Amino acid sequence: MGTRRHAIINYSVLSDAVGYRLRRAQLAVFQDFGESFAAEGLRPADFSVVLIIKHNPGLKQSEVAEALGIQRANFVAIVDGLEGRDLVERRKSETDRRVQALFLTPLGEQFADNMMKTWKAHEDRMIEKLGGAQARDELIRLVNRLTE
Amino acid sequence: MGTRRHAIINYSVLSDAVGYRLRRAQLAVFQDFGESFAAEGLRPADFSVVLIIKHNPGLKQSEVAEALGIQRANFVAIVDGLEGRDLVERRKSETDRRVQALFLTPLGEQFADNMMKTWKAHEDRMIEKLGGAQARDELIRLVNRLTE
Repeated sequence: MGTRRHAIINYSVLSDAVGYRLRRAQLAVFQDFGESFAAEGLRPADFSVVLIIKHNPGLKQSEVAEALGIQRANFVAIVDGLEGRDLVERRKSETDRRVQALFLTPLGEQFADNMMKTWKAHEDRMIEKLGGAQARDELIRLVNRLTE
Repeated sequence: MGTRRHAIINYSVLSDAVGYRLRRAQLAVFQDFGESFAAEGLRPADFSVVLIIKHNPGLKQSEVAEALGIQRANFVAIVDGLEGRDLVERRKSETDRRVQALFLTPLGEQFADNMMKTWKAHEDRMIEKLGGAQARDELIRLVNRLTE
């Protein structure tokens, strides 16, 4: 009495189901990411979009979305949010005025530099949980086989 | 001309970022799952809920949601959907009339048996992509460290 009863769960095939285990792990990593960036209100998708634009200025919206595997509607919402925070700007492409190219603003450049420090601390925690850089490399090697 | 130009993307730290790589892999596995279960319109979360109820009949809603790490609002929507398809039923708990316990319907039991065949084919594809059962075990061992 007074202690909370926890049901003992039979997980059946979920115990070592690839999709289920990947999803739980991904949620745990994203939760740590969310806590790390709580002050900035930055989500993993925002981070990846800022990073791709920083390292590939002038890409078309569709190219960034495709590179990250983000669906168009979701991607537009992400860029709207980043534009609203004056981190990203859309400019008409010089080669095709009908398409929008993406760039970081000066504030966005500064933001991108600062976010890398927070990200590094998060990533180091994940690598430590995995058991070091070698274990991380092994994990990446394995999960990449699922996307090939 | 005539071939589509693909931008060469600099992914910077995303190339071996744990969260990003896990997310891409999880999405790839869930896409295969979705294609496998397109006829049944079954999503991974539905599958896991049916499986947990089958192997743990009479659990409270909150216990199933917690076991699977699904947020309450999302979980209620999932159970509503499964109830609407006459696969799952809520009954008042015999020990506490204020809480709802979850059971499969007879149709749900039959559905659960059938879905395991489709799931096994999906899972076998994922294991083959990974390079066999040993690689799968190694992956599970690594990702579990992230949720401990």
